[in-house]
Amino acid sequence: MAGGTPSSGIAIVGSGVAGLHLALLLQQQAIPVTLYSDQTAAQLASGRMLNTVAHHNTTVKREEALGVDHWDLAEYGYFCHHHYIGGPQPLSFPGAFGAPSRAIDYRVYLPRLLADFQERGGDFRAGHLVIPEEIVRLSEQYDLVVVATGKGGTSAMFPVIPGKSPYSRPMRRLSAGLYHGIAPSEPKGVTMSIAPPHGELLEIPTFSANGHVTVLLFENVPGGDTEILADAKYDEDPAAFEQLVLEKVRTHHPEVFARIDTARFRLTGPNDLLQGAVTPVLREDYAILPNGRVVMALGDAHSVVDPVVGQGANSASYSAWELGQVITEDQNFDERFAQKVAARRANRVRAISDWTNLMIGLPPAPHLLQLLGAMSQNPAVADEFTNNFNQPERQWDILATPERTAAFLARHGM
Amino acid sequence: MAGGTPSSGIAIVGSGVAGLHLALLLQQQAIPVTLYSDQTAAQLASGRMLNTVAHHNTTVKREEALGVDHWDLAEYGYFCHHHYIGGPQPLSFPGAFGAPSRAIDYRVYLPRLLADFQERGGDFRAGHLVIPEEIVRLSEQYDLVVVATGKGGTSAMFPVIPGKSPYSRPMRRLSAGLYHGIAPSEPKGVTMSIAPPHGELLEIPTFSANGHVTVLLFENVPGGDTEILADAKYDEDPAAFEQLVLEKVRTHHPEVFARIDTARFRLTGPNDLLQGAVTPVLREDYAILPNGRVVMALGDAHSVVDPVVGQGANSASYSAWELGQVITEDQNFDERFAQKVAARRANRVRAISDWTNLMIGLPPAPHLLQLLGAMSQNPAVADEFTNNFNQPERQWDILATPERTAAFLARHGM
Repeated sequence: MAGGTPSSGIAIVGSGVAGLHLALLLQQQAIPVTLYSDQTAAQLASGRMLNTVAHHNTTVKREEALGVDHWDLAEYGYFCHHHYIGGPQPLSFPGAFGAPSRAIDYRVYLPRLLADFQERGGDFRAGHLVIPEEIVRLSEQYDLVVVATGKGGTSAMFPVIPGKSPYSRPMRRLSAGLYHGIAPSEPKGVTMSIAPPHGELLEIPTFSANGHVTVLLFENVPGGDTEILADAKYDEDPAAFEQLVLEKVRTHHPEVFARIDTARFRLTGPNDLLQGAVTPVLREDYAILPNGRVVMALGDAHSVVDPVVGQGANSASYSAWELGQVITEDQNFDERFAQKVAARRANRVRAISDWTNLMIGLPPAPHLLQLLGAMSQNPAVADEFTNNFNQPERQWDILATPERTAAFLARHGM
Repeated sequence: MAGGTPSSGIAIVGSGVAGLHLALLLQQQAIPVTLYSDQTAAQLASGRMLNTVAHHNTTVKREEALGVDHWDLAEYGYFCHHHYIGGPQPLSFPGAFGAPSRAIDYRVYLPRLLADFQERGGDFRAGHLVIPEEIVRLSEQYDLVVVATGKGGTSAMFPVIPGKSPYSRPMRRLSAGLYHGIAPSEPKGVTMSIAPPHGELLEIPTFSANGHVTVLLFENVPGGDTEILADAKYDEDPAAFEQLVLEKVRTHHPEVFARIDTARFRLTGPNDLLQGAVTPVLREDYAILPNGRVVMALGDAHSVVDPVVGQGANSASYSAWELGQVITEDQNFDERFAQKVAARRANRVRAISDWTNLMIGLPPAPHLLQLLGAMSQNPAVADEFTNNFNQPERQWDILATPERTAAFLARHGM
């Protein structure tokens, strides 16, 4: 950006999945686009694990359309969810996808898409963290600026929507790592293992720089028995950390534990662990700068969700796609444009936020427990819930109120 | 409704185009529906002219889908707009539709569709004007009540949206009549004749119980030279009234006058005249009753627009269609349902309201005059404006701001 000359087209700040999918879409439509990132491709490829992300098939379909579907689903995909709910009478049941999902470590995924963008002639400017003051400058150089990162304080340009951001603090403390030594489930799928009242374990078959490995994402309720996993220091004593993880899996998540070869079990590397927490927030879709220019929010600048149902990246990709469609239709980047984008993506993005927030609510909502119980009894119900990871607005159609859940179960004869 | 027993399904109050299109759509989907009207089919067929309505091709397409496309476009359709703008240097230019529009007197149209509905087994209950208190009772008998009429005070159940209802009084006083003695334009089309600063004349080839006749819809600016047409009493002296109309057409609308056979010129009947005025208003899409039930607004209960660009009936039909689609997808009639309907139809319904309100603004907005001037110079611009009568949200994309109009004209090399 330093020394940039007056330009035109679209500036995208942030090279995560939202920024890259939008950049690739605009490039495909021959709309001039410049992609800014604080990190180079090499920096994106190395360093600490960025997140633990699954792309559901609706997102895979977008990757096909963008020509970046590089990982054959037969090898890299997964096909179902395995559910385990602990308690005096544990429940165990699958839910099938109509079409596969796929999890690729973003240190592999993002650099590959960035290479696609650059090989196709894309303008990528890396190595500088854009701050809000620079957004104003960019807004005068470009026809439109899209903020697609939560970094640099730029999110704060977009006001929080209060009613859609019900939690003032994280509801889970997270410990996510990549591990060797866990055999895939059969059929290959994600295991969602719930240990009331301590939290959840998401076990995700993932491809990383180390090949086919396994994400263990612990969603720990503050004060619960597994919370320590969000605090324990791997670097101080790797073996002790791995033993602690094993112990918690053995105690709370027996179906996952049964697939662990304890002799081979280890973190795939010191950078392959992420501990932290997320306060979910939904922000306004756009801001109007004092200079009158419209700036659009995308990805983490727009919506941050807990990873418990794996919707964040899918929301970001969807949201980028809808923004890109409106850009191809209407290049008057004024408030009407911004409101069209907002209206177009509202139903899904808000459903993702609402559904995810319901999933991490404490205590769990009775109608959510009712639905989980019904899933254990009725495969059609479990499959519909599972498929709705692709269409979260349909999930929210089922879960928005107890009456809706009852009506849904009635349709299934329950 | 008197003596109605507890029932289920959808109750539609109002048998205008909105109520009928929705009723026919739900009937097609085998969703139980009951249609209430204050008038019988015989009453709808007789009496004073209800309005002067053109159905643009997007509405005709809905009629095809509903199996009520009874009027062959080759005979009953029209194919373009003829524009005339008076002044020291009059402008005259056409604009072509990609697909024909059609105008049928609603005293022919509505009874025919009502017969379709009843012949297909529809439940029609006529002869009683439903008032707000009865809406509450209906809401407890049916799964959902849709208010699709402005009569009976039921509109007031839905709050006015202030920013979208900018006028507190009518901007035009109307005189609409059906006439013999006017030869169709060539190609057959609607003539939009503008006589600044007095108002507009819309001349519409229409089919009525008297065969192929012509609507003259005078849109009279209060205080202008044609305002008297909204007050003159036909019944007191029919010949004097017709002479007055002729005189105003001769003075202000020469291209229409040139097609009048003054010897044959006359109103087609004493009931074929409507004088009045419209205060445009956009209301909320739904209301939640004290008993917790959701009631949806449709047609005149939702949006009332001046007839100057012939959008009211098309808006009502579109809005009914979108409501019907959501009903087929989600039969949980709660606030989430209502918000989905609102989001789905907002862009078009609001664009219709905004565009129409711009057209009747006084003095005319400079960018509207700029567009009309450009239309007179560039047939592609005139055709796009004309076709956008089918997609009013695209019209508003062009007219929402002076900058948008300038960008649109720049795309046309102007």
